[in-house]
Amino acid sequence: MEWKPDKVNDLPLYKQISNYLESCILNGEWPSGSRLPSERNLAKTFRVNRSTINSAFEELKSSGLVQSIVGVGTVVSKNVWENDQNRTPNWDRFVKEGFYLSNNPINQMIYQLIQTEEKIINFGIGELHADLLPMKLMENVHRSMKLDGDLGYQHIQGNIKLREVISTHMKQYRNITASASSILITSGAQQAIHLIIQCLLCPGDSVANENPSYAYSLPIFHSDGLNTHFLDVQDEGIDPEQIIDLYKKHRIKMIFLNPIHQNPTGTTLNLERRKKVMEICNKYGIAIIEDDPYSLLTYDDEKMYSLKSMDTNGLVLYISSLSKIISSGLRIGWISGPQPVIQRLADVKQQIDFGHSNFSQWYATALLESPYFNEHIIELRRGLKNKRDLIVEAFKHELHQDIRFIVPNGGIHLWCESNHKTINDQLLFNDAIKRGVIFAPGNTLGSQHNFFRFTYSRPEMNTIANGIHRFAEALKASIKK
Amino acid sequence: MEWKPDKVNDLPLYKQISNYLESCILNGEWPSGSRLPSERNLAKTFRVNRSTINSAFEELKSSGLVQSIVGVGTVVSKNVWENDQNRTPNWDRFVKEGFYLSNNPINQMIYQLIQTEEKIINFGIGELHADLLPMKLMENVHRSMKLDGDLGYQHIQGNIKLREVISTHMKQYRNITASASSILITSGAQQAIHLIIQCLLCPGDSVANENPSYAYSLPIFHSDGLNTHFLDVQDEGIDPEQIIDLYKKHRIKMIFLNPIHQNPTGTTLNLERRKKVMEICNKYGIAIIEDDPYSLLTYDDEKMYSLKSMDTNGLVLYISSLSKIISSGLRIGWISGPQPVIQRLADVKQQIDFGHSNFSQWYATALLESPYFNEHIIELRRGLKNKRDLIVEAFKHELHQDIRFIVPNGGIHLWCESNHKTINDQLLFNDAIKRGVIFAPGNTLGSQHNFFRFTYSRPEMNTIANGIHRFAEALKASIKK
Ligand SMILES: Cc1ncc(COP(=O)(O)O)c(C=O)c1O
Ligand SMILES: Cc1ncc(COP(=O)(O)O)c(C=O)c1O
Repeated sequence: MEWKPDKVNDLPLYKQISNYLESCILNGEWPSGSRLPSERNLAKTFRVNRSTINSAFEELKSSGLVQSIVGVGTVVSKNVWENDQNRTPNWDRFVKEGFYLSNNPINQMIYQLIQTEEKIINFGIGELHADLLPMKLMENVHRSMKLDGDLGYQHIQGNIKLREVISTHMKQYRNITASASSILITSGAQQAIHLIIQCLLCPGDSVANENPSYAYSLPIFHSDGLNTHFLDVQDEGIDPEQIIDLYKKHRIKMIFLNPIHQNPTGTTLNLERRKKVMEICNKYGIAIIEDDPYSLLTYDDEKMYSLKSMDTNGLVLYISSLSKIISSGLRIGWISGPQPVIQRLADVKQQIDFGHSNFSQWYATALLESPYFNEHIIELRRGLKNKRDLIVEAFKHELHQDIRFIVPNGGIHLWCESNHKTINDQLLFNDAIKRGVIFAPGNTLGSQHNFFRFTYSRPEMNTIANGIHRFAEALKASIKK
Repeated sequence: MEWKPDKVNDLPLYKQISNYLESCILNGEWPSGSRLPSERNLAKTFRVNRSTINSAFEELKSSGLVQSIVGVGTVVSKNVWENDQNRTPNWDRFVKEGFYLSNNPINQMIYQLIQTEEKIINFGIGELHADLLPMKLMENVHRSMKLDGDLGYQHIQGNIKLREVISTHMKQYRNITASASSILITSGAQQAIHLIIQCLLCPGDSVANENPSYAYSLPIFHSDGLNTHFLDVQDEGIDPEQIIDLYKKHRIKMIFLNPIHQNPTGTTLNLERRKKVMEICNKYGIAIIEDDPYSLLTYDDEKMYSLKSMDTNGLVLYISSLSKIISSGLRIGWISGPQPVIQRLADVKQQIDFGHSNFSQWYATALLESPYFNEHIIELRRGLKNKRDLIVEAFKHELHQDIRFIVPNGGIHLWCESNHKTINDQLLFNDAIKRGVIFAPGNTLGSQHNFFRFTYSRPEMNTIANGIHRFAEALKASIKK
């Protein structure tokens, strides 16, 4: 809800609000029978006292537009319209239909809070702060861009120029050989994962995810009726032998891995294990979905090579994205793999959204092609390393005795575990928000409690120490309880 | 496949091609067991003789990389890799899995042809030619744009500024009241339709589509297991009484309508019928999905008002898009309707693609806000009307006796029917392509044969007469048979 009451208007706030809600009801935005947001939420959204909302609700009640129902809340009355025989479609049922589960409410809340609470120090979202973005490079690209490309519907695999540039980029930065025709442009790695799940698998199929992992947090695996099994992430990544176990027990068909600077643990699958994973999957014919948004973000100069770069057999569908190296708002990701698979995914992507915006594809092409791209990556690594040092320092300073973590040598996430096993994750999370800091509770990303993910790329440099201080206060308070 | 052999290279063409195919096989783009494209298709893609491809295939066969299997074609050999025990994942099975059907092969072909055959005169795709686009406006917008917005993940309903601008635009141009908070930005109308089907309906639910219609052409209705019933489109749009029939017989829950300058018929639901539709759906509680990409494109000055503008009851989910008024490559569409529905769709959109590219949202905002937007629309109408006149003239000139059509008074499509009932649609379509013209065969858009859709916005002015001439030749040839 983006409308806000006007605090210098002559009309009292409560009256402005009741007028606004009335218009929403009368033009069908809140159909009869639907529940209004709670007084508390509205007070937050409109930045007024709860009593103001209460008065607005009273106003609406007295005009008969809404009514209170005990145990439900404030509901739009059924008889708003003259003709009593009218029936509104059962939107409530529609909203509950379809096979999609809702997003995890904690994740929903994290995304809502960044819209409304500007002062919160945010370690909860996996993206780069503006201080890490290639703003100069972007502006150069913007200024030198000519809008003379094709403005119509595009090739269903995405802009050919961008696919060629990505093909070159993958060779140069990732040691991966893939021709433009075996690449599909997607709306970030997110859509790549979604397409793979929805197009290549069926309800009842068994797959394996890392535990913890970003994939763990995605409701789409369950929405789609997959049987999801887990590969435990250790300091050196997953144990390849566990793949064999899962294959023998459950005939897993696909494994989803994020082997380099993993989200959330920051760990990297070591070389020996990588070879072993390839060997095992080759032997059993298990498809590998390698989600690799972070391999360019290694702080020391060592290059990290993907499973895909070892693949001569069409074993791996490789996913990456510009979200963590340029800008998540660009929404540019890609999948590379066997052509028949890429073509199938492209056909379905066309049905879903008719392909990707030309505009962001042009920017992505120019950014990747720019001679300054490499410089940006070097600077980005340096910036991330500085932020990593700051957060590590802050944790040591504030919570030396209370938490454990592995210092990440790349990527954007720090994964830590509390030494106090009795903490209530939900209460801690809520208390931290009250103190002005947000992080991702570990159990949204994995099956264990008492873990927390701090994404240090997101807050500004000079807020990191303060953010960890606030978290420390919250944690100490919850230990005492 | 975008690689092309180099005609001035010393290496013979067939050898370049066999080298290229070999590298595709060895890096897994064509895994073992997968079928290579046909010789004919490869010859077309690489722009060489078929015999050249044949030689390249012989080369690959002699090295054991591929083999011919009778009735199947040329297949990558199973024993390409040293270790015979390796198993490639069963990609073939993966490609056939999932609930998505493939796109209609005719539609697939239309999209493929625009990539490879530049000289074809194309009436097959519903988009604007560059001569109708607001190029100057776009360039102004581009030049004055500052990249200082938020480059991270966005509000899950889309950029708030854009939603506000759309809210104003809808009021001004469409007589629709909808606040920014009841709007969701989508990747065109396409994604809006897709989200509604996948999120609000369940397999077995009954819905109604117009026949013919754009919706008819979408495999997603069937993929999702819906029972689809039909409302016949007449000169004045659908017959509202048919809704009652379908409700009584099948308990339809939703109807999908494109009431203004409909795709493909160009017809508009008249005012009396519009009122009746609203009344009936109100009475039975049937939800209306109003897909309205064309209402700004009325050639005379009469304003066309949507069902949504008559809705006080939250009966209508309204969909529109900038594809047909600015550029389809922008991929900007939106849905407006009851907030609980919008919020549900936004939550799922986040799971699917993590929201829309900022870049195209910034352009869309600036374009809609520009004081020259209105001028562009006026010019666009004039340009479309000219093209309409040209195509009508050409049809009268070439095929006066042979076809019938209604002259559209808005939009971009002309729908015509052949007077000869014995034509084979598929043969005619193929023959027309050979003669250098492409159109949408009617049966991809509706249940009847002998109809054709010509989208006159797509070809350049000076090719329209020639295109219809080519079609006329093809039609006359097929009548003679
Ligand atoms: C491992 C991993 N995969 C996928 C994504 C989705 O990113 P995007 O869709 O922006 O590329 C993320 C984002 O946090 C991630 O960490
Ligand atoms: C009626 C109708 N709906 C939806 C679409 C999809 O358009 P887009 O996704 O580009 O907005 C089209 C395109 O032809 C159409 O004619």
